[in-house]
Amino acid sequence: MTGLDASALSHHDKMARKKTARDKMMAGKNSEKGLVIVHTGPGKGKTTAALGMALRAIGHGMQVAIIQFVKGKRETAERKSLERFAPLLSIQALGEGFTWETQDRGKDIEAARRAWEIARQHLADPHCALVILDELNILLRDESLPLADVLAALEQRPPAQHVVITGRGAPASLIEIADLVTEMTLVKHPFKLGVKAQAGIEF
Amino acid sequence: MTGLDASALSHHDKMARKKTARDKMMAGKNSEKGLVIVHTGPGKGKTTAALGMALRAIGHGMQVAIIQFVKGKRETAERKSLERFAPLLSIQALGEGFTWETQDRGKDIEAARRAWEIARQHLADPHCALVILDELNILLRDESLPLADVLAALEQRPPAQHVVITGRGAPASLIEIADLVTEMTLVKHPFKLGVKAQAGIEF
Repeated sequence: MTGLDASALSHHDKMARKKTARDKMMAGKNSEKGLVIVHTGPGKGKTTAALGMALRAIGHGMQVAIIQFVKGKRETAERKSLERFAPLLSIQALGEGFTWETQDRGKDIEAARRAWEIARQHLADPHCALVILDELNILLRDESLPLADVLAALEQRPPAQHVVITGRGAPASLIEIADLVTEMTLVKHPFKLGVKAQAGIEF
Repeated sequence: MTGLDASALSHHDKMARKKTARDKMMAGKNSEKGLVIVHTGPGKGKTTAALGMALRAIGHGMQVAIIQFVKGKRETAERKSLERFAPLLSIQALGEGFTWETQDRGKDIEAARRAWEIARQHLADPHCALVILDELNILLRDESLPLADVLAALEQRPPAQHVVITGRGAPASLIEIADLVTEMTLVKHPFKLGVKAQAGIEF
């Protein structure tokens, strides 16, 4: 160990101790099960973080289904990229846009029900390892879909299946049953500085 | 407008008003410029949200470079998926793992400097529309890299280039110059319930 000075040795010792503690902590985590994951809050990154998880899952050869509850038929950049991973990944945008775009409550509810039927099929499919329900929270919050149906489908899904649900305002009873909840908080936003929405950033 | 009841009409009116206000707000946002975006905080989703942004950018045909400052040579699921998008996207993992894995401060600093040299080349390349500096905050916090050099390179980069910097503990002076900062906050984490790290979720 010559050539190492006292501060380097102490860094090594400190890190070795940290690793031992960490290894011990990780060894205690043995159970493996499908997780319900919620991305909520007013900040950015709720959908993009779900898309990043889809990328990881595909890299492991896992089957992935993405249902977009608000985005509609118009081609999006994320769909264009992800369609390359078919048939391992499917992405369906079944929404009609935000409620202030459609301005038609009946049409919103009809679209929500149609999308939910497709989602439910994936939630019942044991080959589907990861189901992403993008912006579902929005539809639960405005009661376009009955929360009880969603909670029941999550409860009855295949035990190893992971589900990610995104959108602002996740209902308390969803957070209650979730395994992992992340809140995205806005610290600084360029819209406030007069910068417009840009390709690759906002859409 | 027969066939619409009073509540449907009022929903329509409310949403029409919301759309007018929103369109007006968006019309005021005219400037377009490269953004410095920071994903920080103790929660999940900092890296995955950056990967999701890469997906969007690729869908727009934009050139993307990802430098991973902590992850090392070992193949990861995200790299396996993203390598499909070469040559539009490049992803390089130039780290040596977390400090408690390497336990060697000199080696950490050397790896950090090497990775930063590559990052700096991308930050000077006007063809590169999005540069993702994954876990850079970690290296700034433990002073493996001089913060002043990083701030200077961000300042001098091509004006349309977007940069995303991830990792816990973003330095205050980086937040100061950033355009968009999101803090990922942990609400609930499955490690606490004895569930182990799983493929497609944690890595």
